[in-house]
Amino acid sequence: MEKQILLLPGDGIGPEIIAETKRVLEEIARLYHHTFQFVEGRIGGDAIDATGSPLPEETLDLAKGSDAILLGAVGGPKWDGNAPEKRPEKGLLQIRKALGLYANLRPVRVLKPLMGASTLKEEVLADVDLLIVRELTGGLYFGEPRERRQINGEDGAVDTLLYTRGEIERIVHQAFQFARTRKKRVVSVDKANVLESSRLWREIADEVAREYPDVTLSHMLVDNAAMQLIRDPRQFDVIVTENLFGDILSDEASMITGSLGLLPSASMNTSKVGLFEPVHGSAPDIAGTGAANPLATILSAAMMLQYSFGLADEAKAIEVAVDRVLAQGVRTKDIAKASENAVSTTAITNAVMEALALK
Amino acid sequence: MEKQILLLPGDGIGPEIIAETKRVLEEIARLYHHTFQFVEGRIGGDAIDATGSPLPEETLDLAKGSDAILLGAVGGPKWDGNAPEKRPEKGLLQIRKALGLYANLRPVRVLKPLMGASTLKEEVLADVDLLIVRELTGGLYFGEPRERRQINGEDGAVDTLLYTRGEIERIVHQAFQFARTRKKRVVSVDKANVLESSRLWREIADEVAREYPDVTLSHMLVDNAAMQLIRDPRQFDVIVTENLFGDILSDEASMITGSLGLLPSASMNTSKVGLFEPVHGSAPDIAGTGAANPLATILSAAMMLQYSFGLADEAKAIEVAVDRVLAQGVRTKDIAKASENAVSTTAITNAVMEALALK
Ligand SMILES: CC(C)[C@H](C(=O)O)[C@@H](O)C(=O)O
Ligand SMILES: CC(C)[C@H](C(=O)O)[C@@H](O)C(=O)O
Repeated sequence: MEKQILLLPGDGIGPEIIAETKRVLEEIARLYHHTFQFVEGRIGGDAIDATGSPLPEETLDLAKGSDAILLGAVGGPKWDGNAPEKRPEKGLLQIRKALGLYANLRPVRVLKPLMGASTLKEEVLADVDLLIVRELTGGLYFGEPRERRQINGEDGAVDTLLYTRGEIERIVHQAFQFARTRKKRVVSVDKANVLESSRLWREIADEVAREYPDVTLSHMLVDNAAMQLIRDPRQFDVIVTENLFGDILSDEASMITGSLGLLPSASMNTSKVGLFEPVHGSAPDIAGTGAANPLATILSAAMMLQYSFGLADEAKAIEVAVDRVLAQGVRTKDIAKASENAVSTTAITNAVMEALALK
Repeated sequence: MEKQILLLPGDGIGPEIIAETKRVLEEIARLYHHTFQFVEGRIGGDAIDATGSPLPEETLDLAKGSDAILLGAVGGPKWDGNAPEKRPEKGLLQIRKALGLYANLRPVRVLKPLMGASTLKEEVLADVDLLIVRELTGGLYFGEPRERRQINGEDGAVDTLLYTRGEIERIVHQAFQFARTRKKRVVSVDKANVLESSRLWREIADEVAREYPDVTLSHMLVDNAAMQLIRDPRQFDVIVTENLFGDILSDEASMITGSLGLLPSASMNTSKVGLFEPVHGSAPDIAGTGAANPLATILSAAMMLQYSFGLADEAKAIEVAVDRVLAQGVRTKDIAKASENAVSTTAITNAVMEALALK
């Protein structure tokens, strides 16, 4: 198989974790006889410094010509004071919108060797394996008007939460399709006791559910979902929700594992082009020290192989290799206990590549 | 002191926990020589059944003539299919708006004897004592337009997140004033990297902070706050945030204690009239069985004594009595371990009254 992959290293530890993940992808290409062609672009603070824009035209053109995109991380204190349009995160929001990446997938799987790292008790963690399907191009993130406004002679500000039927239908369908390949349970999260958009969301979820008689749908209010994720995360299989609720709940859920450094994500559009990135941020405090954990990015690359290229075996091989390395006790600093030795970004990647070569 | 208290039992277990809490307040009146006059009104499903409206005029008149309001709980499956205007929760939203109850206070304190009930490990729980100050009459809950709408020929729905300077200023002031009586740290939670209303919120929080040089302000994005509450809840003293973020985060935070049955709340306006209610819901499944835990309502009554009537000693007496009862191992079913005996709503209230009488 021949594929073009756009690498967007971004800021902070982004360049380091992308460089290491590229080595893993090259190893996959060698072992499984594929040809991956890599191109590189700028995004975020790095792009602002070089071009004045967090998402230069050039990067968007490269993205449109590629089969998938692998992103490191964006942001850092250097750009915190910038105006909204010149902030690193704006690049991320713009590329999501420009490519129509409406489906954000965040799997949360508790890995046995790291269970101790969670602040939650082991008894609620065993076998947690959930997938958050977050709508990514609608809702409060993009609704208009979004502006300062005089309200009865007073300063005020307005944002708009807006959803159309089509936007809701396609993300709910995604969730049901994933549920079919899993435990066949979807929980749709909304705030239907308060929001009109949530009431529409709930109606449509019920309609879509009729097309999937083999999958169970239930509804949960977002405040209750925030509780249930801590009370008993094992109850969930697939969670589907709108953009901002998904932002909050997926970050909350990431804490269940206790190791943010291991969580991948995928953002997909209606064609198979996707953007793959770790859930964690750019960690400017450890950039350049060789301490960054590349595993979330490596696992994001596995999601890319599976969802954009349909290479399920290769994806599985990476996941198995990561599990093996962790079972062996190889740790970067963020996941090492006080008593354990921490290795570098490059060393843990080497371990993954060795595990891969064993097949 | 002479005060009129409006009791709003509401639905499910509401009537039981309000009746028990009334006994505790009568005991306080006897012990400390106050006169509490009780009046009773309808709200929620109970009011819908009797009058067709979740908040009858009559109830609102009683509220306006009272010094404070003690509410049980509203809602239940019986009314789940009702139109938005005829739902029990609407009564709650209407009374908040009608009385201008803009400041919702949710203290989260981990009680030593119940620490084991949390799904979080004891090492992150010790000494957790935080206060969430949630804006309660603005934002997405009340912003207009909120409606179904055709969008490019498609069905759609819209909600509006709107805040004015005055709304933000008064709630942030509240937070700083509480922080002064506590550990002098305020974390303001927003989504300033995406929302215009959050950027206004952050500007105003910074301005208000200048009037409280003895208190430290920091800002946190809502997705990060959802993580930090689980990762290390001890880092927080006072959290201030807008309505919907406060709804989600305070329910998440309630799980830290592992015992929803113990969490009180207060909703205050610019005069001292407040509405006090437990954080938990109406628990229709156990209504009428005598199993309900009245402690959250009893602790809400303590908040009423303190915040509406300025009776700090009496409030403290209730809190100490509840702590003592729990230390003695008295438990309702929701907080009893498998090995522990559970007592009834009335029995645990009796225990609190006995502890009170000891002074
Ligand atoms: C950086 C920010 C705009 C972004 C979001 O809120 O979507 C991030 O939190 C995420 O979840 O990818
Ligand atoms: C019942 C509901 C409308 C309400 C809210 O969202 O404010 C409840 O969740 C609360 O927190 O008091």
